[in-house]
Amino acid sequence: MPARETTIRAFVPGDQNYERRVRDSFARQGIMTHIGAELGRIEPGYCEIKLPFRDTLTQQHGFFHGGVTTTIADSACGYAGFTLMPADATVLTIEYKVNFLAPADGELLFARGHVIKPGRSIIVCQSEVTVVKGDGQRVCASMTETMMVMRGLTEKE
Amino acid sequence: MPARETTIRAFVPGDQNYERRVRDSFARQGIMTHIGAELGRIEPGYCEIKLPFRDTLTQQHGFFHGGVTTTIADSACGYAGFTLMPADATVLTIEYKVNFLAPADGELLFARGHVIKPGRSIIVCQSEVTVVKGDGQRVCASMTETMMVMRGLTEKE
Amino acid sequence: MPARETTIRAFVPGDQNYERRVRDSFARQGIMTHIGAELGRIEPGYCEIKLPFRDTLTQQHGFFHGGVTTTIADSACGYAGFTLMPADATVLTIEYKVNFLAPADGELLFARGHVIKPGRSIIVCQSEVTVVKGDGQRVCASMTETMMVMRGLTEKE
Amino acid sequence: MPARETTIRAFVPGDQNYERRVRDSFARQGIMTHIGAELGRIEPGYCEIKLPFRDTLTQQHGFFHGGVTTTIADSACGYAGFTLMPADATVLTIEYKVNFLAPADGELLFARGHVIKPGRSIIVCQSEVTVVKGDGQRVCASMTETMMVMRGLTEKE
Repeated sequence: MPARETTIRAFVPGDQNYERRVRDSFARQGIMTHIGAELGRIEPGYCEIKLPFRDTLTQQHGFFHGGVTTTIADSACGYAGFTLMPADATVLTIEYKVNFLAPADGELLFARGHVIKPGRSIIVCQSEVTVVKGDGQRVCASMTETMMVMRGLTEKE
Repeated sequence: MPARETTIRAFVPGDQNYERRVRDSFARQGIMTHIGAELGRIEPGYCEIKLPFRDTLTQQHGFFHGGVTTTIADSACGYAGFTLMPADATVLTIEYKVNFLAPADGELLFARGHVIKPGRSIIVCQSEVTVVKGDGQRVCASMTETMMVMRGLTEKE
Repeated sequence: MPARETTIRAFVPGDQNYERRVRDSFARQGIMTHIGAELGRIEPGYCEIKLPFRDTLTQQHGFFHGGVTTTIADSACGYAGFTLMPADATVLTIEYKVNFLAPADGELLFARGHVIKPGRSIIVCQSEVTVVKGDGQRVCASMTETMMVMRGLTEKE
Repeated sequence: MPARETTIRAFVPGDQNYERRVRDSFARQGIMTHIGAELGRIEPGYCEIKLPFRDTLTQQHGFFHGGVTTTIADSACGYAGFTLMPADATVLTIEYKVNFLAPADGELLFARGHVIKPGRSIIVCQSEVTVVKGDGQRVCASMTETMMVMRGLTEKE
């Protein structure tokens, strides 16, 4: 197979404080603390989230539950898009779809979200989730998410 | 709009103990206890899951996080499909897609999953999630999920 | 399985001439004439499209090609949404997803699209496609589509 | 944004005659001739399809219809997966989802499909469609498709 022609785009952040705004918003997502998720690197159009394994995050086979994988994949997409937005805007997730490519069997989930289509009203992102087990890792989920740019919806204090 | 011609199918359970098997499997999903989700009615090809609001389940606006909504929608689909399976089989989620139709702002989420296409190797389900607030309720999410029937993958003890 | 609680909503058309506008727009879709598709019933929030079998519409097994099934499912969704829009607006498809539930093996495809979530800027529709063969029929595809309401994009003359 | 870590995998074809088998199967898809689509490069896990503009392929604004874009995106995915399969197998599309990223306004559509997850029973592919207009080109659609490997379903003569 020929190399995928992946365009490396230099995205322009919507506001110089984009990293601060992402970290503040993330801190307000109760579910992220509840499951133990942590933000990784944040760049314009890009966001990473890590999630160490816990028994409280499992499905019936003892692996990470698909909903948990989806939760961090969703937030990685959402914050990737959020970095491109002006200071008075927020994002609303319209829809997403996830393919589960391998069992999420391991010690750590790692979601990387990036913008594939910036826009004034609609932003499309993708995220890939890898699961780390011992020395190896594999891609376990792939998400595509559509978001709408919203203005005037205040975040809770 | 004319009434949707919704076929009411009488599904045949894959095993007479389908309800017991669903409840046992659900009890093994650590994430369900962790977020406080409860099983409701279970019938052949159908499953309900309820989730009362907690501060630990929120996104940045103080509503239920989309990943949480998805988590119970996913399990409602999965167990709807599971009721139709023989005793030695289990389900593997291949993929799903969710549309978020309204903010999940309320005291309770209620997911109803049902099979739309039974099959020997592939099962397709849909679930609808409503959010209850005061006396009212509204549909906040709609999911379609594709599952594969697996044999020989033992659930953890 | 309990009956699906399908709400029969009475949608308000966006313009009294909604049926005329749908039929005019459909006539401008070159692909519909090219494949031989015909409009059926049109109501506020609802649209039907029929497509008789031709050898030119097949995939490699001699059934209707999935892309053809999708094409009429897409237009049925799009026009269902279009009926709810004011006279100066048009619809733009943001994304859709389709599950293929049975081979599209028969003499006629019949797509029924309906709105599941009306909105000022985002409309969500679903369509179901049945294939008719002899005296029988079966559902062969199920689509969910997200559309954006656009103003000021003129249709070609 | 950091470069996407796109793994360039060397896929092993399922049969040495994979290119011949793809070209023969494509020739049996009546819809491909009908719309004027042509196969491009074929490699293990990869397939290209081109489609020049015609008035008969349009939606109401005079651009390529979304269903047409989807039709070639679908076949590009399907044949990318088909190259990895043994001689006695065929592929069945279970589902796909498409995001439309820009209007398909131009002289030529170009779909590139590649496998993202090979498998014995389930294969997942993605395709990207670009539209060429004058000297420029842009990505207009992105698809993810899930396929099942089938044995014993004979293609028509």
